[in-house]
Amino acid sequence: MTDSNVLFASIPQVGARYRAGTLSPVEVTRAALARIQELDPGLNAFITVTADLALAQAARAEAELRAGTDRGPLHGIPVALKDLVDTAGVRTTCGSRLRSGHVPDHDAAVTVRLREAGAVLLGKTNLLEFAYGAVHPDYGQTNNPWDLSRTSGGSSGGSAAAVAAGLCFAAFGTDTGGSIRIPAAYCGVTGLKPTAGLVPLGGVFPLSWSLDHGGPLARSSGDAALMLAALTGQPVNAAPRDLRGVRFGVLEEHTRGPEMQPGVAEVFGRACDALRGAGAVLVEVQVPDLDLVDAALLPVLLPEASAVHAAWLRESPEAYAPATRRQLELGFTVGGVAHVRAQQFRHRLARDFLAALSGVEAMLTPTVPWVAPHEDPAVAGDQGSAEARRTAPANLTGFPALSLNAGFSAGLPVGLQVTTRPGEDALALSLGASLEALLGENRIPPPPAGTRPGERTTL
Amino acid sequence: MTDSNVLFASIPQVGARYRAGTLSPVEVTRAALARIQELDPGLNAFITVTADLALAQAARAEAELRAGTDRGPLHGIPVALKDLVDTAGVRTTCGSRLRSGHVPDHDAAVTVRLREAGAVLLGKTNLLEFAYGAVHPDYGQTNNPWDLSRTSGGSSGGSAAAVAAGLCFAAFGTDTGGSIRIPAAYCGVTGLKPTAGLVPLGGVFPLSWSLDHGGPLARSSGDAALMLAALTGQPVNAAPRDLRGVRFGVLEEHTRGPEMQPGVAEVFGRACDALRGAGAVLVEVQVPDLDLVDAALLPVLLPEASAVHAAWLRESPEAYAPATRRQLELGFTVGGVAHVRAQQFRHRLARDFLAALSGVEAMLTPTVPWVAPHEDPAVAGDQGSAEARRTAPANLTGFPALSLNAGFSAGLPVGLQVTTRPGEDALALSLGASLEALLGENRIPPPPAGTRPGERTTL
Repeated sequence: MTDSNVLFASIPQVGARYRAGTLSPVEVTRAALARIQELDPGLNAFITVTADLALAQAARAEAELRAGTDRGPLHGIPVALKDLVDTAGVRTTCGSRLRSGHVPDHDAAVTVRLREAGAVLLGKTNLLEFAYGAVHPDYGQTNNPWDLSRTSGGSSGGSAAAVAAGLCFAAFGTDTGGSIRIPAAYCGVTGLKPTAGLVPLGGVFPLSWSLDHGGPLARSSGDAALMLAALTGQPVNAAPRDLRGVRFGVLEEHTRGPEMQPGVAEVFGRACDALRGAGAVLVEVQVPDLDLVDAALLPVLLPEASAVHAAWLRESPEAYAPATRRQLELGFTVGGVAHVRAQQFRHRLARDFLAALSGVEAMLTPTVPWVAPHEDPAVAGDQGSAEARRTAPANLTGFPALSLNAGFSAGLPVGLQVTTRPGEDALALSLGASLEALLGENRIPPPPAGTRPGERTTL
Repeated sequence: MTDSNVLFASIPQVGARYRAGTLSPVEVTRAALARIQELDPGLNAFITVTADLALAQAARAEAELRAGTDRGPLHGIPVALKDLVDTAGVRTTCGSRLRSGHVPDHDAAVTVRLREAGAVLLGKTNLLEFAYGAVHPDYGQTNNPWDLSRTSGGSSGGSAAAVAAGLCFAAFGTDTGGSIRIPAAYCGVTGLKPTAGLVPLGGVFPLSWSLDHGGPLARSSGDAALMLAALTGQPVNAAPRDLRGVRFGVLEEHTRGPEMQPGVAEVFGRACDALRGAGAVLVEVQVPDLDLVDAALLPVLLPEASAVHAAWLRESPEAYAPATRRQLELGFTVGGVAHVRAQQFRHRLARDFLAALSGVEAMLTPTVPWVAPHEDPAVAGDQGSAEARRTAPANLTGFPALSLNAGFSAGLPVGLQVTTRPGEDALALSLGASLEALLGENRIPPPPAGTRPGERTTL
């Protein structure tokens, strides 16, 4: 069995077959490369496919596993990296014209860790320009596997689409205001923004140094946990939990608002009902001043991004997409006092989230108030703010936040966000695994782009 | 023996006599209050003397010790707090007209800890207005115990003068660019700016939230260690070390410069010679970009301070001293990008200091390039920058830095700064204790203001 079925299996399922000798890393890598060749012209999820490197790494993994050298759960598993992660010898564009020919000398810390875990690198995934506000026309939008006329979201859209469409098993993304969780929600996959500082960002091109986080996207919380373990070099115990008696806080302010699509509210409500049915206890929780999140995010994000780009913006302003350039210019108008106040607000917000989490194990909200739109809204605009309103708090506070698929609205995936206390990334993933098992029936996954009905079965 | 002699004893010496029953906290507190009454009109070290509270706390300590309840080394020891530390029921002015009548409802975290350690609070010490650049005329300058025509330095000048003149055994100060270490150097006492975050600042009025540190001033590293232990609630092992074979890095760039007074260079040189004589190994170390420290400190400090004061500055600009107001207004002209870049520089500087410390146990520099001047230079001016040039790096990096008296130049104290790695506060204090023992003969302490020759003996 080397057809595309295997590409939708879980990482442990594939690993078990590797170790039983009934499947090989080279076979699976060939299947993934074939699927990329078939589907990526429509998806545009990859900027660079590293076919030769992937086959060489797969052959090495195969030889190692045969020789009894076992690097753990990711050994021989094809993965992808967002194209702002340095890969020595492999072009790293940041989705920009300024870095279109840039080939790093060194690997990023996470590239090293994934290689040491034996993962097979299939390629570098598409992203908004420098992970900022806009698609650069040189690279184009990543289309959504559930509807190619829609976006996969930003900025880690390529990573989310590749995982959703079975082009790889897991991918690395970055998240500054929601850039892992928003595309995860739009594409119906699982994405974790870990606790601030947990995943090293050395060799990852910065967007906003005090808001940036790196983390996994995968098709389940279990697979995301294996990816997180490789990224951190630490074991992650994310076994699903019995939900009976588990207390969840529902952040009421994030369940409503004029931007909330009825279909999204409905899926979220059904998920809450299913939790209650499973014996979980749902209580309403409040966090004050959530309406100030937009006003805090931008005075932090904008000048931090502009500080990174100041020299390029002076020398090559025309190389940027117009929307990116506008935001970078806007960053220079933010005063130091406004920036400082926004940074101080973050501490208050963290304290208030901690208080809201004090009587519950985790907090639940919809990830995004709508399903995947046709185009990405600009980050600094009104729509962009509404898109990130439910995800940005976790960037401001540094708390872990997981988005998983809670079901579908008019055939498009709807994300559910699980927020836990700092350092409780494994708890978020464990509750995520329980939720995925519970909501399995609700999710009724239609075949993603290019798959044929019946193909998406487990091994 | 309840004359002022006892006020110059070490904290352990006094504590031993308390426990032997040959001296009592009430006697010592009375002696300290009498000395404040005698000398503080000339020094102006205290804004508020809490005589009744102190006597009540001393009586309680005395009763507790007699009953066998021992709260540790600070039990019954008179101390003072810089007057920006909240004390429930005791006026806390911040050296400002805006808070001239402010009586906090709650104690600061360090107030609670000192009380729990059994320390006796003598009062609240004078400071530059809001610990910023200037003396407010309502409170006036704290004069130097070694020469009343000179300043005790800022901003923790009252704390340093009170300790030096034997008005208290130890005091709490804050340090944003050198505000513990500079007055410690000017007054010939020991002051520690601890590792960032080690001493809690809840209830301490902020100057610059990312640069502020709180820490002890005392007449020796040993006493400062006891104070630090009380402030942190953790034991601090700062026993003096054998200096043979201990490697010190001398930061050459900080030993020279046009601002360096020959007398200060001479005392520093003699201290280095004494260390070599004791078998220590001195090597020259380098830190790149030290000339950028001024350019980094101000874009961090200024907008952070202005963010705190924005509302008051709008409503009551006339309440500030003119120099303070000017600096607060200047803070609003700093751009967010400049602030962000300065914050980023701090990370590079920390990395470079860590590298410079890699082959040595500690780094040595003069604390200030001159002895106590007649007036405090303004922080943002040229002189102010030169004053803090050797101390501000430790605020930018968060590394611990200790200033101790290395000797005298024309009868005025000269400070020596010991910098160690983050978390190595006890090492800095331990090396400080060794240095104090070694340099004892060089220090030839003349009697501070108001004392009579022969009074300043140990018990």
